[in-house]
Amino acid sequence: VSAPPPAIILVRPQLAENIGTAARAMLNCGLTDLRLVKPRPTMPHPRAIAACSGADSVIESARIFASVEEAAADLDHLYATTARARDQLKPVVTARQAAIEFRNYAASGERVGYLFGPERTGLENEELLLADALVSVPLNPKFSSLNLAQAVLLLAYEWRMAGDATAPRRSEESKEGRASKQEQAEFFKRLEAELDACGFLRNTHMRPTMVQNIRNIFLRGGLMKHEVRTLHGVLTGLTQRPHAPRPKAKAPASAADKPPRSRRVPSR
Amino acid sequence: VSAPPPAIILVRPQLAENIGTAARAMLNCGLTDLRLVKPRPTMPHPRAIAACSGADSVIESARIFASVEEAAADLDHLYATTARARDQLKPVVTARQAAIEFRNYAASGERVGYLFGPERTGLENEELLLADALVSVPLNPKFSSLNLAQAVLLLAYEWRMAGDATAPRRSEESKEGRASKQEQAEFFKRLEAELDACGFLRNTHMRPTMVQNIRNIFLRGGLMKHEVRTLHGVLTGLTQRPHAPRPKAKAPASAADKPPRSRRVPSR
Repeated sequence: VSAPPPAIILVRPQLAENIGTAARAMLNCGLTDLRLVKPRPTMPHPRAIAACSGADSVIESARIFASVEEAAADLDHLYATTARARDQLKPVVTARQAAIEFRNYAASGERVGYLFGPERTGLENEELLLADALVSVPLNPKFSSLNLAQAVLLLAYEWRMAGDATAPRRSEESKEGRASKQEQAEFFKRLEAELDACGFLRNTHMRPTMVQNIRNIFLRGGLMKHEVRTLHGVLTGLTQRPHAPRPKAKAPASAADKPPRSRRVPSR
Repeated sequence: VSAPPPAIILVRPQLAENIGTAARAMLNCGLTDLRLVKPRPTMPHPRAIAACSGADSVIESARIFASVEEAAADLDHLYATTARARDQLKPVVTARQAAIEFRNYAASGERVGYLFGPERTGLENEELLLADALVSVPLNPKFSSLNLAQAVLLLAYEWRMAGDATAPRRSEESKEGRASKQEQAEFFKRLEAELDACGFLRNTHMRPTMVQNIRNIFLRGGLMKHEVRTLHGVLTGLTQRPHAPRPKAKAPASAADKPPRSRRVPSR
């Protein structure tokens, strides 16, 4: 049962560009039912089409009405967006709460819609007469005026999020997947053996803490199988230098600083 | 302890208008730290100022950098926005989850920032080398491309919402407040007495259900003190017609249809 998304009703929109960018924001969030009450631009206006960046279908199927009453006639619930507090006893809901309520209504087969006023003047009181609630987006109180398309985006986005099941944090794992604890332990033991061999872990008192710290660096983010292979290669590269450039005969001092390692064993 | 908001880093932005509308979206959500890496427009560009609709301070204090590394140097956490899946093993978080994580970091005094790529091409892999995670906004998979300022808005909005304590649904009550149960009961009893008197509740079998239904109409939305006074006035107006126009002598038939009520008592 996929709930029908809200209708977006733009009342007396003044700029064709804003109708276009609002349509784009709608389609970004899966909304397609655009209704225009007395739009100033003749629709479909070419600048609205240009501004919608590919959401042409939303512009082309937009319906024009002469009043809010006609535009909302088939809806069961109508929430109006308004930045200004008004002397009206309507409940005020956040955009997030409105989305939750609309999802609930829609799940019962009830039709829902949002009402947006003109760019500069907002909705008239007469245009709010059928609204069940006012939607207010909690923004910076010192700078709260949103562009029309930005307001449409936030409400449409909250609708989408209210029905979204995307995992909040996920790892894009390679097909091989994560390194097992055995693979991790093998790498750690080899690393610690090399660090014992080079004298880095010579302080036996500090050794357990050092080992712990080093392991935690790698454990914190988790390791993939192919990353453990890369780390084995890094270790081989640093300790056995199988591909290090040969010292040049003409620079013996430099060659003495970095002698080629004599211990050469096959890398893993 | 108010957490410092995220820095917004725009990498190679191409259009001055987008820098302006992004600045507006930032300030809408209380963000002010704008950083530009190799912007194409010479800043502060007049079209950026025009498009920011009053967020001039954000544009004027924006800092310009030559690389992502320099722009992010003072940050502790950097999340990159990208629409495209990449062959990189970075965790992918939703915009909402990113905001929660950033709030946690910021509460510990750690500095956070979001990285945005150029309008058409997005971020290069080299520009992602310092990013801890990728942010993905769950949108319509068939139409997911957001305008730069819209993307900035959604991330900034989620940051704001993650720290917002606005009641999800509230009533703008008048100073007098809600009608008490006693005031409600008095109105209901008066209404039911009038409905008994006029014969509407004559069916004694149905009467309890009718009374219940009528009360629920009013109880569902709650009633304020001044609304109960209005309803008493409505009842007086309908039953006692104290202000009804007098029937005209020249139209006796019509006057007979709607005789003035003889029972006149003072309205409440």
